Amino acid sequence: MRGKLRYGMVGGASGSFIGDVHRKGAEFDRQAVLVAGCFSRSYERTLATGEELELDPERLYRDHNEMAEKEAAREDGIDYVIIASPNSAHYAAAKAFLEQGIHVVCDKPMTVTVEEAEELAELAAKKGLLFCVTYCYSQCPAVKQAQLMVKNGDIGDIKVVVAEYPMGWLVGPVEHEGTDEAPWRMNPKHAGISNCVGDIGTHVEHTVSYITGLEIEELCARLDNFGGDNRPLDTNAHVLVKYKNGAVGNYWCSQVAVGHDNPLTVRIYGTKGSLAWCQEDPNYLQVAKVDEPTQTMRRGNPYFYPEAAQMTRLAAGHSEGYYEMFANTYRKFNSALLKLKEGRELTPEDLDFPDVKAGLQGVKFIHRCVESSKQGSVWVKFD
Amino acid sequence: MRGKLRYGMVGGASGSFIGDVHRKGAEFDRQAVLVAGCFSRSYERTLATGEELELDPERLYRDHNEMAEKEAAREDGIDYVIIASPNSAHYAAAKAFLEQGIHVVCDKPMTVTVEEAEELAELAAKKGLLFCVTYCYSQCPAVKQAQLMVKNGDIGDIKVVVAEYPMGWLVGPVEHEGTDEAPWRMNPKHAGISNCVGDIGTHVEHTVSYITGLEIEELCARLDNFGGDNRPLDTNAHVLVKYKNGAVGNYWCSQVAVGHDNPLTVRIYGTKGSLAWCQEDPNYLQVAKVDEPTQTMRRGNPYFYPEAAQMTRLAAGHSEGYYEMFANTYRKFNSALLKLKEGRELTPEDLDFPDVKAGLQGVKFIHRCVESSKQGSVWVKFD
Amino acid sequence: MRGKLRYGMVGGASGSFIGDVHRKGAEFDRQAVLVAGCFSRSYERTLATGEELELDPERLYRDHNEMAEKEAAREDGIDYVIIASPNSAHYAAAKAFLEQGIHVVCDKPMTVTVEEAEELAELAAKKGLLFCVTYCYSQCPAVKQAQLMVKNGDIGDIKVVVAEYPMGWLVGPVEHEGTDEAPWRMNPKHAGISNCVGDIGTHVEHTVSYITGLEIEELCARLDNFGGDNRPLDTNAHVLVKYKNGAVGNYWCSQVAVGHDNPLTVRIYGTKGSLAWCQEDPNYLQVAKVDEPTQTMRRGNPYFYPEAAQMTRLAAGHSEGYYEMFANTYRKFNSALLKLKEGRELTPEDLDFPDVKAGLQGVKFIHRCVESSKQGSVWVKFD
Amino acid sequence: MRGKLRYGMVGGASGSFIGDVHRKGAEFDRQAVLVAGCFSRSYERTLATGEELELDPERLYRDHNEMAEKEAAREDGIDYVIIASPNSAHYAAAKAFLEQGIHVVCDKPMTVTVEEAEELAELAAKKGLLFCVTYCYSQCPAVKQAQLMVKNGDIGDIKVVVAEYPMGWLVGPVEHEGTDEAPWRMNPKHAGISNCVGDIGTHVEHTVSYITGLEIEELCARLDNFGGDNRPLDTNAHVLVKYKNGAVGNYWCSQVAVGHDNPLTVRIYGTKGSLAWCQEDPNYLQVAKVDEPTQTMRRGNPYFYPEAAQMTRLAAGHSEGYYEMFANTYRKFNSALLKLKEGRELTPEDLDFPDVKAGLQGVKFIHRCVESSKQGSVWVKFD
Repeated sequence: MRGKLRYGMVGGASGSFIGDVHRKGAEFDRQAVLVAGCFSRSYERTLATGEELELDPERLYRDHNEMAEKEAAREDGIDYVIIASPNSAHYAAAKAFLEQGIHVVCDKPMTVTVEEAEELAELAAKKGLLFCVTYCYSQCPAVKQAQLMVKNGDIGDIKVVVAEYPMGWLVGPVEHEGTDEAPWRMNPKHAGISNCVGDIGTHVEHTVSYITGLEIEELCARLDNFGGDNRPLDTNAHVLVKYKNGAVGNYWCSQVAVGHDNPLTVRIYGTKGSLAWCQEDPNYLQVAKVDEPTQTMRRGNPYFYPEAAQMTRLAAGHSEGYYEMFANTYRKFNSALLKLKEGRELTPEDLDFPDVKAGLQGVKFIHRCVESSKQGSVWVKFD
Repeated sequence: MRGKLRYGMVGGASGSFIGDVHRKGAEFDRQAVLVAGCFSRSYERTLATGEELELDPERLYRDHNEMAEKEAAREDGIDYVIIASPNSAHYAAAKAFLEQGIHVVCDKPMTVTVEEAEELAELAAKKGLLFCVTYCYSQCPAVKQAQLMVKNGDIGDIKVVVAEYPMGWLVGPVEHEGTDEAPWRMNPKHAGISNCVGDIGTHVEHTVSYITGLEIEELCARLDNFGGDNRPLDTNAHVLVKYKNGAVGNYWCSQVAVGHDNPLTVRIYGTKGSLAWCQEDPNYLQVAKVDEPTQTMRRGNPYFYPEAAQMTRLAAGHSEGYYEMFANTYRKFNSALLKLKEGRELTPEDLDFPDVKAGLQGVKFIHRCVESSKQGSVWVKFD
Repeated sequence: MRGKLRYGMVGGASGSFIGDVHRKGAEFDRQAVLVAGCFSRSYERTLATGEELELDPERLYRDHNEMAEKEAAREDGIDYVIIASPNSAHYAAAKAFLEQGIHVVCDKPMTVTVEEAEELAELAAKKGLLFCVTYCYSQCPAVKQAQLMVKNGDIGDIKVVVAEYPMGWLVGPVEHEGTDEAPWRMNPKHAGISNCVGDIGTHVEHTVSYITGLEIEELCARLDNFGGDNRPLDTNAHVLVKYKNGAVGNYWCSQVAVGHDNPLTVRIYGTKGSLAWCQEDPNYLQVAKVDEPTQTMRRGNPYFYPEAAQMTRLAAGHSEGYYEMFANTYRKFNSALLKLKEGRELTPEDLDFPDVKAGLQGVKFIHRCVESSKQGSVWVKFD
Repeated sequence: MRGKLRYGMVGGASGSFIGDVHRKGAEFDRQAVLVAGCFSRSYERTLATGEELELDPERLYRDHNEMAEKEAAREDGIDYVIIASPNSAHYAAAKAFLEQGIHVVCDKPMTVTVEEAEELAELAAKKGLLFCVTYCYSQCPAVKQAQLMVKNGDIGDIKVVVAEYPMGWLVGPVEHEGTDEAPWRMNPKHAGISNCVGDIGTHVEHTVSYITGLEIEELCARLDNFGGDNRPLDTNAHVLVKYKNGAVGNYWCSQVAVGHDNPLTVRIYGTKGSLAWCQEDPNYLQVAKVDEPTQTMRRGNPYFYPEAAQMTRLAAGHSEGYYEMFANTYRKFNSALLKLKEGRELTPEDLDFPDVKAGLQGVKFIHRCVESSKQGSVWVKFD
């Protein structure tokens, strides 16, 4: 444990898909080790998970408040907590740990209301704590390459953004078929005011924002509750976006688009060139320049910018995938925290992970989309 | 010429790209032969084109009125006219020939105002004349297959349509560089009230309509004049669409999307499956059904529906392309006209080419998009 | 007919797929017109085809000898003949027309024996007649671009060639199911000593040769008669090739590769880069250079070399396909012949169509493959 | 450590790419923990690596013999050793651990001579020890799906196999440029008698063998030492294969194929269908059946056979890549060893990882290829 970070978890009990992904991500580079947890609202499930993960039973807690207090009081207490519970439980847990001076990694969307998100952003700033929201897709080397190309002016001024995240798994009435995921995502109590935009539309918003740096001026959204019967929440959304720089965007997310698994795709068109990236083919970046052949940039080759190249782990042609996106997110977060603990000053580059502001922006995006759609798909200001 | 149709042309002088495409299309299956023309507003250019095409100089005309009258008066007069002049000239020419009882094939968009389009539709109906608008993309065998699959219920009820036609050729100030195409397309006098929606957005609208049969209830459009400097007409448009059946659509067309040539792409999502087709890869149809592997249907193979299979000419794997789409359009039109001339009754299947109603709908679409955008991208009723 | 060439046909009766393709190709650019024919061994079929094609009944012949003599004797006799009969009938017909001083276009493979091929090559040379063998695939603009890139040294010295032409249509016993094509291709009397290598392997050989200019030193082939039952001829072949420059090649052709239609694919690897082209996606050329992103060159864009760009007809993104490959072959042949008739001297560029030497090389390739395989797949010298 | 396996490593010092991959793979599912090592021939490097990995200094060894003896003598000694040193060092290390009764995981190729490989196979059998060779590519879920489809007869009887593994990294004289990998791979002392076939050709052989179960009767290979100058070992190889069932195969591997990273691709053609898989797109399996649309099977969807589905970790559309292939290999090995330690009997399914026989077959393949090529690329018997 020499020099390693200690972390705890809220949510992510044994059997939870995303819980395991977080743990693998946090520990991928041997920078952190799990020592405490409140993995479930069921204490028994927490105990069982703790045993499976070989944790000290003393550090298995009944609720996040107890965990935050007791861990804060220990000399070997956790450096940070990972919050991987359903959406509606994020806020209270994050707040509890922040108040105890414990850094936070939180799944997305960060909260279910804009007010909660703003409060967490303020609290984290006031306490001087790191707060990461696991928008993992932006932490892919090819996405970083895209961001650097935009920054470097390689594609000129951005005029048009077209992005989509279509899935097909909710086309049938799966909430009645006992899958693990559908029931809570379709339940406003747990998911908040949106299902589709909240679950995947927010990934579109973040990935575009991370690559382009564009800020949304206003948007017009159309949400539909297709699929199943009498669904209370959206499963398909189209969002037109006007950015502050005059560019225009078109986002689509869906859970009723039969034939699609997880192909989050972002295309950016500038005055000198264009970029395209797809999450299902994450090792490649398509690049086009005016009057030149289209290019496919393959991760691991020497033409990636150094800052993007550093994010790769494997030789070109050996696929990196979803786990590596989480591992990249955590490597940045862990590295920043280790540096902070050593008393060194953090640079903006050290903080190049999706943070509490990105989390707040995501929650705002969800709310603006729902507002627009409810008012008849009119244009609403983002801020 | 035994049993062949005779046709004339307005526009499409020698050197015009689209003029040659029309002629090759009309004659591909040896059903028709060119015998008359008014190929240009310049009579000299008409004469030169006529000579090159080995036409009787008597049948080369100074204007479409003269041509319509004289051809109508001849015993061996043309059976139909092809109108391939710039957009703003379509209406007067079409009207002249219809009034003389001559069938018409007209390039798209059919007219520059809705009123003109309505007048032509009424006139053609009143006169009992065939009127084809060359929305060639819908006449691709794989598009027909898509239409038949929708009709047959293979993908269930349609809920979402996502379609796009991005091009990149107008990103720079090409209207000042002397290309043939840009100047008139950017000139409202010749192009009408829209450049991008009028040129390619209307193809999106027609292809979707042909495949799905969906009718637009209302739409919300955002048009931008990106590229060049101070352009008077649009070069990029996003259009959200609500269909009468409750489905939702998202259309994008652009001429500033660097890296794209002509990839008109239509994706249709239903409750049982989805379809995707791209004009640059026109021999294939992507099909997905719930919980099944994604399929690629390859034109020429035995699983195409007979009506779509009949439209193919070449063995599977030998690419058919753009010329064949025109040839297919003309084969349907020529065949219907030949049947009509033989005094036989036409069935709905005989009339399965884009007709004057499709032309009217296209013009309406252009106008509704411009109206919506001018009013601040609000929702406007289609009818 | 001012300035147009007159041509006749042997084979290619109405209903023959390839006959129609030849006619469309020959006439695509209005350079030639069909005036005579001996379309079938059945005179009645010839008469019916002639009527359908509106030919003068006087110029419909019972056999190719009669046709060659009578056409040679006419003042308005044919300038050239297209031979589109089964393989084994090519030689006698070609010889008859050459002896009468008539230029020849012949389908591939040119003959069924090497001796016949050599005789035709000598005869054509002696008579000073043009002789084109319709290896259409090399006449695709992207293939020309590949050839020019090799010539220009863009990929350095070629070291490895990997090419394939897999099809799947003969995997079952289709020769007993009454398809038009299978019976004669499986009959040594009509097809010669090879089915698969003769039909499609020879396309692989020619396309590689056209692009690279490499000459085969020796080869080692393994032929198998898979599919159906007790087939007399090959349906699958692997051929290892050593070129005179020290490079190595690997060719595969098959008619039992289920799932493939006509994806002739050629990949060329040099010391500085590589090229890849596929017949089913013929408008694109894949290019890779050392340590650079992979490129996709799209036909119709400005980066094609002028000589390749000239071969395109349509704007980028509007697919050109199989007909255009034939049309390109015929445009070169027709243009050369027109120039010759005008008494002008032909340059090597005028003769840039697959000629009688390419035809001879193809026949040799077929024979060397069969020889090697029969001897236990040993290495045999090419010349 | 309750119930976890203890393992040690030979080779794979800190900074070694493949060493880290092995450790991540072995520990991915929390089944095993690293406790000992001889990571380098340099003891100092071993000590530094041990410190970094937080190992007990007592369990860091100067050579594999010392390590094998001392670990065998400890009550808490390692259950298995991972051998990740250069090829030529595998044999002695593996033998040392086997003789001490310690199970082995060894990188490929297993040894540099056939005799060594046979000896290890005999020794492992005699001692009743598990021996895994990390041919990781066969441990991809889509490859397992392919294997199960073949076993189930879904594509009928296999007739043709076409497989390739092209890379481009050795096209230039990189052995003089100080990359880590090139020098030893190009040095016969460390790499054995082959570079290209030994490094990647053996992956082709194993993956084909795993999927198809076909046994090689004889082969004919052509090896070339392209690239760099005066290379002592091969960088490009073509291998024709005759299988015992009468099918034919064509393998190509290369390190001078510019533009390729690691696209190991295997295509299997049977009488009823075909399969294709590519390592760079590992989550997908292409399937074609006679007269049906081509299918793309996407890992994570319900149509995978259960045994293949069990191997997936992530939801469909979230890419699994290279690390997961190693993790899958180790999960099978670790699970089998845990079961063995519990005294339970292993079934053939428990042993479904590449074993010492696969390792022996790989070494034989390398030697047969070199023999064939040296004799003028003649056919040589495999056994």
